Amino acid sequence: MEMRTVVAKAAAAEERAEYTVVGKRLARVDGKEKVAGKVKFVDDLHFPGMLYGKILRSPRAHAKIVMIDTTAAQKLDGVKAVISGKDLPSVKYATPREAGDRTPLSTDKVRFVGDAVAAVAAVDEETAEKAVALIKVKYEPLPVVLDPEEAMKPGAPQIHSHVKNNILHEVHWNFGDVEKGFRESDYVFEDRLSTTAQPHMCLETHGCVGLWEPDGRVILWTSSQSPHFRRTDLAKTLGIPLGLVSIKKATIGGAFGSKYELYPDHHLVSLFLSKKTGRPVKMILSREEEFYCTTTRHAAIFELKTGVKKDGTIVARQVRAILDKGAYASQGIFVLGSVAWRFTLPYRVNHVKFDGYLVYTNKASAGAFEGFGSPQVTYAIECQMDIIAEKLGIDPVDLRLKNATRARDIAPGGTQPVSCGLSECIEKVAEAIGWREKKRTKIPGRGLGIACTYFECGARGFVGDTDMSTAFVQVDESGVARIWCGGSDLGTGFDTVMSQIVAEALGLKLENVRITTTDTDITPFDTGIWASRGTMMNGNAVKAAAEDARKTLLAAAAEILYTQTSEVVLRDGYASVRGAGEKKVPLSDVAAYSYFTKATPILGKGFYDPDSHVLDDRGNSTPPGYCPTYLFAAEALEVHVDKETGEFKVLEVAAAHDCGTAINPTLVEGQIEGGVARGLGMATNEGLRYDASGKCINATFTDHKMFTAQDMPMMKPIIADVVDPKGPFGAKGGSQMSLVNAPPALSNAIYDAVRVRIKELPITPEKILEELGAR
Amino acid sequence: MEMRTVVAKAAAAEERAEYTVVGKRLARVDGKEKVAGKVKFVDDLHFPGMLYGKILRSPRAHAKIVMIDTTAAQKLDGVKAVISGKDLPSVKYATPREAGDRTPLSTDKVRFVGDAVAAVAAVDEETAEKAVALIKVKYEPLPVVLDPEEAMKPGAPQIHSHVKNNILHEVHWNFGDVEKGFRESDYVFEDRLSTTAQPHMCLETHGCVGLWEPDGRVILWTSSQSPHFRRTDLAKTLGIPLGLVSIKKATIGGAFGSKYELYPDHHLVSLFLSKKTGRPVKMILSREEEFYCTTTRHAAIFELKTGVKKDGTIVARQVRAILDKGAYASQGIFVLGSVAWRFTLPYRVNHVKFDGYLVYTNKASAGAFEGFGSPQVTYAIECQMDIIAEKLGIDPVDLRLKNATRARDIAPGGTQPVSCGLSECIEKVAEAIGWREKKRTKIPGRGLGIACTYFECGARGFVGDTDMSTAFVQVDESGVARIWCGGSDLGTGFDTVMSQIVAEALGLKLENVRITTTDTDITPFDTGIWASRGTMMNGNAVKAAAEDARKTLLAAAAEILYTQTSEVVLRDGYASVRGAGEKKVPLSDVAAYSYFTKATPILGKGFYDPDSHVLDDRGNSTPPGYCPTYLFAAEALEVHVDKETGEFKVLEVAAAHDCGTAINPTLVEGQIEGGVARGLGMATNEGLRYDASGKCINATFTDHKMFTAQDMPMMKPIIADVVDPKGPFGAKGGSQMSLVNAPPALSNAIYDAVRVRIKELPITPEKILEELGAR
Repeated sequence: MEMRTVVAKAAAAEERAEYTVVGKRLARVDGKEKVAGKVKFVDDLHFPGMLYGKILRSPRAHAKIVMIDTTAAQKLDGVKAVISGKDLPSVKYATPREAGDRTPLSTDKVRFVGDAVAAVAAVDEETAEKAVALIKVKYEPLPVVLDPEEAMKPGAPQIHSHVKNNILHEVHWNFGDVEKGFRESDYVFEDRLSTTAQPHMCLETHGCVGLWEPDGRVILWTSSQSPHFRRTDLAKTLGIPLGLVSIKKATIGGAFGSKYELYPDHHLVSLFLSKKTGRPVKMILSREEEFYCTTTRHAAIFELKTGVKKDGTIVARQVRAILDKGAYASQGIFVLGSVAWRFTLPYRVNHVKFDGYLVYTNKASAGAFEGFGSPQVTYAIECQMDIIAEKLGIDPVDLRLKNATRARDIAPGGTQPVSCGLSECIEKVAEAIGWREKKRTKIPGRGLGIACTYFECGARGFVGDTDMSTAFVQVDESGVARIWCGGSDLGTGFDTVMSQIVAEALGLKLENVRITTTDTDITPFDTGIWASRGTMMNGNAVKAAAEDARKTLLAAAAEILYTQTSEVVLRDGYASVRGAGEKKVPLSDVAAYSYFTKATPILGKGFYDPDSHVLDDRGNSTPPGYCPTYLFAAEALEVHVDKETGEFKVLEVAAAHDCGTAINPTLVEGQIEGGVARGLGMATNEGLRYDASGKCINATFTDHKMFTAQDMPMMKPIIADVVDPKGPFGAKGGSQMSLVNAPPALSNAIYDAVRVRIKELPITPEKILEELGAR
Repeated sequence: MEMRTVVAKAAAAEERAEYTVVGKRLARVDGKEKVAGKVKFVDDLHFPGMLYGKILRSPRAHAKIVMIDTTAAQKLDGVKAVISGKDLPSVKYATPREAGDRTPLSTDKVRFVGDAVAAVAAVDEETAEKAVALIKVKYEPLPVVLDPEEAMKPGAPQIHSHVKNNILHEVHWNFGDVEKGFRESDYVFEDRLSTTAQPHMCLETHGCVGLWEPDGRVILWTSSQSPHFRRTDLAKTLGIPLGLVSIKKATIGGAFGSKYELYPDHHLVSLFLSKKTGRPVKMILSREEEFYCTTTRHAAIFELKTGVKKDGTIVARQVRAILDKGAYASQGIFVLGSVAWRFTLPYRVNHVKFDGYLVYTNKASAGAFEGFGSPQVTYAIECQMDIIAEKLGIDPVDLRLKNATRARDIAPGGTQPVSCGLSECIEKVAEAIGWREKKRTKIPGRGLGIACTYFECGARGFVGDTDMSTAFVQVDESGVARIWCGGSDLGTGFDTVMSQIVAEALGLKLENVRITTTDTDITPFDTGIWASRGTMMNGNAVKAAAEDARKTLLAAAAEILYTQTSEVVLRDGYASVRGAGEKKVPLSDVAAYSYFTKATPILGKGFYDPDSHVLDDRGNSTPPGYCPTYLFAAEALEVHVDKETGEFKVLEVAAAHDCGTAINPTLVEGQIEGGVARGLGMATNEGLRYDASGKCINATFTDHKMFTAQDMPMMKPIIADVVDPKGPFGAKGGSQMSLVNAPPALSNAIYDAVRVRIKELPITPEKILEELGAR
């Protein structure tokens, strides 16, 4: 460790020891309410006169719509509106909106089984369902294409008329000179690896209540990760002024990226039904719809070519990536960009060439999903890392340590982490899983695997040259702080983290902080919760607002304590004079003094916009790159494989996160463990399957096994000892990465156990057995 | 007019001419929603599992409670809780809380017909009413006292045990030397005048939904004028931390002072019923309960002695005032203080002696009511002013002009208006009603009357040494401003006025401003809407917050326009360079540039606390006194009296207000006209009447005629040309005073018409006929 790092760590440790709220394992601020069932999810919302909407969905994967007859549906008692595509103005949506290719209801043709064709609003759900069943649609079948490589071929069925060969988007990046890199390499490895279309399976299905007032005002209640951005989307998509649009966040019952964007088929349809009826319209997707109609992870195919020196140094990397878009753009363009970024980190490499293709198929759209392209890429890279390690005779841990990015390294394109605990994470998971010892005393059928990744902390440029969060803070007359913050708690503990940061900044106890989160009518601007940006961006914003309010609190305390503001310590609910902590005044008294004697309210405002830079079309930027800092993680696991059956069991997972200071270690550990579950699910069972006609054949929890608590291995969550210089109290963000690492770690462990390399997810006993049998 | 006033007026006129939003007759921001029936009053609120509460009220005015049997009520299907006083902790409430004398439910005895004895929560209103009827109470009657002068006598029935002779509170103030003043006077006038107990008759009856969560959190939805202050009251009354209490304002369907304080009999009872049942409990008072159980204006008796010089100069004033408190303190102590203040303004007088008594009787409690003691005092003073004028042979208009307070005069106790348009108001109403001409050419049966008054603009010291308002403002990325403000719109147009101030301060169009008003969870601290403080205190607070946000807007505009911020003009939705208005940029573009190019949000915070001073117990303060400034008004009216029947008809009213700059003249005129209606109602029909047992005999709209639109005379509302140096854009506040002036103006006009002087309100044809007959 460098001397300056040692000194910085010692200083940080001393500062951390002073914290009374940050770094503590405190209970979630929303825990009691959630356990008591008192929070309101979208489906808990009820409004006078509210109607219920249902959608008629296409049974065909690709077909022209010849005729829609809604007569019988219209006549049903209790039906208030029936609409089809021809009743709606021509609006198309995607993220970014410029790529808009999806109408709320299909007009000319349907593009996947589940495409929305018509919709009904009725006085209750049952009536709406009956009415939907009465709508008659005549289709003219079109040829179906489900495989993206087939879809790219000339002559394949064309799903959208505005693109050629079904290629929605391409990315071609080139850093250094990859051909030169390969020439300078001792070995060049070429592998083809692929991943599947994992569904989000949030316990709360998607839904909303839409209200479009006759005076033009539009209100959408939904469990959005990003209400302020979606407000902009909604206004621009509908062509109405932003000031007329409100998005009100209900409690979110799982998001994982799927609740980042607007869904034309319920968000927009509910609004159009509301416009027609003049009443609020609730639409809640059924579990089956949730499976086959909402977005999935992009299934991906990588042709990965890597040049290395004999000593393991990675010299060059070339990638051809194909992402299966499904029927509509969703956020695919951003996901393809994210995929491209991911070949330049977390390992040092100078020459990188990337060619990526986003290809339409007649399946459900893929969209944002925890990891945002990273699980797919990391599966490819980390599996190949072990192939390289074996060939070179280097231990996988050592190969990774050798190439691991360090703080202040500048990666191709300009990405520069200001803090980096990757090597620490690798060492700690190796130690926790007993890597060195188990490698020496190998037990038959058991194997060890490791994988590493990095993640963004925000991402500049999604809308404009910013990655901003804003906040207001008030300390009331009883010394209770309230936060107004535009970030959404996805269930990750965001509200708790914000509250802890404000409590620490003001010297309050956590119980004396309240938080109001996103309703675009009552919380200030924020770009939303995605790319692990919450703790860094919102955290710094609420900290800045708290520090602004703190000035008033300090001034009042200084008067009461007969001292200078610079000598006042605010800590644990009290104000005292530095070095004389025994004489302390409750902050409730300080606040009351400020309001009622000094006649000064305690108000703060603040914002944070990082020093990051927008990437250009070629992936170039200047340090620190598109994020202010970056997150790192390593994960090691042990598996047992039964050679007779191919069945395997993950025995133990050690997952280490460099998330900077853990504002609440328990919450970080929760994120780590949850991520491992989703990652092992992705690796083994989770993925939509389609028959030849394009119908999803496992759109239920019976047919689609989810990785649950009872499947979980022993967990050793680890938090690296890193303090980020830009983060609030040194924090960066702690999520997404343990998911990303799990599939390759498992794949590598299975190889270690039985020398079977699964290059195509999912990893199944059948595939293992087949490989074993083939020998 | 003084030269400096002339210069200031010219400057102000020039500035006003520049305004694009302030001073304009713009439609109310809540108008469309109200007309469309979309706003939510308390009774429109519904929550899952909500219960309905009803109260059993005493049929006796004064009695011991011997026994309460709730057995039958408890057994009724659908009843979830039945409580009586003995089930509740010992809490007592009043404003100020130190005077607390009212329990949510009576324990030992009842003190007026309507006192709350027991309460029920049931699944619907009908069941709750049935259950209430099943509760058996045994009373032991006590002697009843209804007249405050009787109640003060030794030996009268004692209503509360903690005071002597039923005198809850006394005020004795003495400025100058009143005896010396009388000696120096040429004439001394002594009159006894009295006023009645006017009910508020809000179209929305009182009500609330109370929720007391098992974890201690308390939420009260109610149409409160002062949610933040009532939150404090509620927390202290219930003995729980302030941070656990929220008050959420529903739309207010009329307030007039009656919705300033907590009502133990529904606010607290709903919470105790909620605590017992674990469910939200709605309580809405019936119209009959609204009449006989909620607070009224204090009926008052004045013995007024005034010494004047021959030329009309007022030299000294001595008052003995008795206020009929009814059964409980409510806000009576503050009202008595307000009554005391009112003998020092709006006329110059050096020697003032005041002795006031607040006396319990067995009637409904009196509380805050538009004018807050002023209508009673003004009736006494202004009737006597005409008695003086007649004796001295001076025209009533001239007598008032001679004594009228002027800007910067310091009244006894230290009260100093920094702006004063009283003389202008007197002259303008005289002109508008045709005073001089009609006095010359008198038509038989017709009469003219005039009256003047002043009003507070806020009042320091209700809680602590402050009179503060606070605000946040955000301009969003589309250039739409949002205000977070703790003030409540009572129906007066407060939200519109705040929005106009912010629009003007930011150069926005009014349609691009939104306002979020009081919910103690989402708006910052405010002391509430009372004492005509909204425009001055909240207006200055939102203006300060807007000006804070404006700095960011100016910086962005300066970059776009390649100029200095000091050269940027923000006006009417555009930014331009001073003197080059043709090149202008929409503020929506400026805002988007700030957010997405400069990465700077547009946030503001602000507060206002005036330079006023708390009065001491003897009524003394230092200038400007307990308010930063004061409001003035004059009102003249013409009446026709039928000598045969005593019937009279108000033909025309000219009412002028010095409210400083009228932010929205239409709203000020609405206040003036509404006030005249209430004032003429108070003068003629409105007042509760009791039989000898203490039962209110006119507790319905059939028996109690309200003065309505069809009773209204021709109106000439006038706004004086005054710019207050402290107010936002020169505004002070515009309400309450036209009510205050109407009863004495009518009384004086009737005297002018038929030489009948009614010293005891109400003025009725019967009384006039009796006087005419007696001659």
